[in-house]
Amino acid sequence: MPRAASTGPRDRLSAQIPVAASAGGVTAPAGFAAGAVHCGIKAPPALDLAVLAADATASAAGLFTTNLVQAAPVTVSKGHLERTRGRARAIVVNSGCANACTGADGLAHAARMAEATAAAIGCAPEEVLVASTGVIGVTLKIDRILTGIQSAAATMGRDQGSEAARAIMTTDPFPKEHAVIVETEHGAFTVGGMAKGSGMIEPNMATMLAFVTTDARVSPPLLRRALQASARDTFNAITVDGECSTNDSLFALASGASGVAIDEDTYPALLEGLQAVSRALALGIVRGGEGATKLIAVTVRDARTTDEARQVARTIANSPLVKTAVHGADPNWGRIVAAAGRSGVLFDVDRATVHVGGVLLFENGLPRDEAAPRAAEHLTRRDVQIEMSLGSGGGASATIWTCDLSAEYVRINGEYRT
Amino acid sequence: MPRAASTGPRDRLSAQIPVAASAGGVTAPAGFAAGAVHCGIKAPPALDLAVLAADATASAAGLFTTNLVQAAPVTVSKGHLERTRGRARAIVVNSGCANACTGADGLAHAARMAEATAAAIGCAPEEVLVASTGVIGVTLKIDRILTGIQSAAATMGRDQGSEAARAIMTTDPFPKEHAVIVETEHGAFTVGGMAKGSGMIEPNMATMLAFVTTDARVSPPLLRRALQASARDTFNAITVDGECSTNDSLFALASGASGVAIDEDTYPALLEGLQAVSRALALGIVRGGEGATKLIAVTVRDARTTDEARQVARTIANSPLVKTAVHGADPNWGRIVAAAGRSGVLFDVDRATVHVGGVLLFENGLPRDEAAPRAAEHLTRRDVQIEMSLGSGGGASATIWTCDLSAEYVRINGEYRT
Repeated sequence: MPRAASTGPRDRLSAQIPVAASAGGVTAPAGFAAGAVHCGIKAPPALDLAVLAADATASAAGLFTTNLVQAAPVTVSKGHLERTRGRARAIVVNSGCANACTGADGLAHAARMAEATAAAIGCAPEEVLVASTGVIGVTLKIDRILTGIQSAAATMGRDQGSEAARAIMTTDPFPKEHAVIVETEHGAFTVGGMAKGSGMIEPNMATMLAFVTTDARVSPPLLRRALQASARDTFNAITVDGECSTNDSLFALASGASGVAIDEDTYPALLEGLQAVSRALALGIVRGGEGATKLIAVTVRDARTTDEARQVARTIANSPLVKTAVHGADPNWGRIVAAAGRSGVLFDVDRATVHVGGVLLFENGLPRDEAAPRAAEHLTRRDVQIEMSLGSGGGASATIWTCDLSAEYVRINGEYRT
Repeated sequence: MPRAASTGPRDRLSAQIPVAASAGGVTAPAGFAAGAVHCGIKAPPALDLAVLAADATASAAGLFTTNLVQAAPVTVSKGHLERTRGRARAIVVNSGCANACTGADGLAHAARMAEATAAAIGCAPEEVLVASTGVIGVTLKIDRILTGIQSAAATMGRDQGSEAARAIMTTDPFPKEHAVIVETEHGAFTVGGMAKGSGMIEPNMATMLAFVTTDARVSPPLLRRALQASARDTFNAITVDGECSTNDSLFALASGASGVAIDEDTYPALLEGLQAVSRALALGIVRGGEGATKLIAVTVRDARTTDEARQVARTIANSPLVKTAVHGADPNWGRIVAAAGRSGVLFDVDRATVHVGGVLLFENGLPRDEAAPRAAEHLTRRDVQIEMSLGSGGGASATIWTCDLSAEYVRINGEYRT
């Protein structure tokens, strides 16, 4: 039942209690252990290899990049999930090398990572999922990886979740992990997770990896449904620079160790737990975006459909002119309106409104110039809100999160030769 | 007949002889005059108002922004072209204020600009086309404009084309004008033009305006067809930052003063002349793009269709990671392949190739790392060539031109408050 301390419409279903950071992210739910080592892909002593394992075979689901160019670990992991019909025991991840555009050797290397992990923890190779992040087009130093897998497996523990979150970083400015306890009528379960985002000091960083765990007992189809639903307004609602990488992967493992079974009745509680963890990780990725100094929430309201709201919000969020204006604390409603106008969604400009930080800047097709100074003040903050109502009468809305575009982004990606 | 001095497949149809820069752009064809003044929209003494007029009513065509949010002069000019069925006598243009998001007043102001121009040169108001470029959401100082129109009309001459090209600039680093003579079996005619591109020192610069003139004698429908066809691989094949403004307008006027009539047989000669002038102006816009230091030609070959080639080329050209890599002279084929992979076009990565400056960097799904230094040397030049073959067997190709993304772009659009 809802906890009194919680607020908002979600109380009806469950309550989320944040888990202390010291508990780690992916190992906060019962039934999981992690291990992390430096194996020699990144410069020492940086951690660059992690193994996350369930105590027994878990329900598993994965979502992968929509890029036509898919890295070897993506291909291998997809195949494993199909063959097991959504079961997995472990995930092995390396950072520093994306194992993308590496041909047949790359596929063999990804398969060997699964085999070595399976041998070390005692399961079938297809019960291991594989992920890599780092430079595109560089061959994996597979011998170092295989030795590292043995070391990581030998040191695994439930207290190593935060180490794993550091091992999957590339040039992320900080590790991203989060966990919540979800209470239901049938007891409490935990959802945890870790992610790496977009830092880019090497030529081609393959961007997003995220791993979510839970000790709820849930079937693979239901876990997959919840993962897809939770990603829609979290991992799939963020953008740093509009680039979709070759390695993007989101995995979920459910151990069942809490004993709380998820069925159609308790499904909303699982979804909420996944959403809470995914949102925290996704916003962390945006905050840690290349050169980012601000987190920008772009909300589009009163669209005809949610898809149209999302399309307009995404166009505004990816507009370099909007992102540079926010960087410069310029309450530039004209760039917001112009971006919406080229989004491909039909709306009546004379019915649209633009608010920045709650300050009305544009209405009835005309600016409200007197409000600009208050909006400019809002834009000096670390958390910025842009809201545009399309005035369609449809009432649909969506939010996309992005970061500002700074000269540092250009310096990171262009001015320093790699 | 073809001139011997010309080269390439176009010789079959015509020869283009560049016109000396001193002849001006829009006034190089016979039957046109221009006038330009400082009327007080921009800081003195910058020219900020131009009138371009034909000696008699001309065939006219216009292409306008596809942004849902359209500035008042766009609305007014579209209406005039419809009412006259493609006839016009003059074009009036101001810089420094876009007259966009200005409501009913804005529409009235654009109409008054046409009326004042018509009164000054002696034609019907609907025979005048109107264009504005500058800040969005600011009301036009219409009294200054109306006085300026009288002054500009009083000083018009065939020698004022280059003045007009300067008067339509906002923060463009240089004026853009070009003209060519086209020889046909039936005699020679001239095509000229001027354009303004993307500089952005004020909050919302409304980007592209271009004006093309010819003394060929051509019916409005044929002129419109040629203008649309010529824009496809010129003005519609460039991108600075993927932003489509509220004011983008491209106008063509044909005086007929050369006496050379354009029919289906000579149409290819007109098209070539328009293309030559439009390409020169369009590439000038990219070279003068905000913070640009390099002109990048992205050519995609062996796609299944031209539309797919264009879609892939556009995705690569708008990729901030590709644009920053070129800025940093980093031969980053992985970013090119990854951008193509997220373009939405299906292709087989293992059949694709990437060349930078003619140097093969990616083939058979694998990098050619030994070639990277030569490609890096190419990227230090002002003109950069990126070529990707999709290996589809379809043979279709397209080129999109863009510029690099520099920290200066961010500074222009964000770091200086306006």
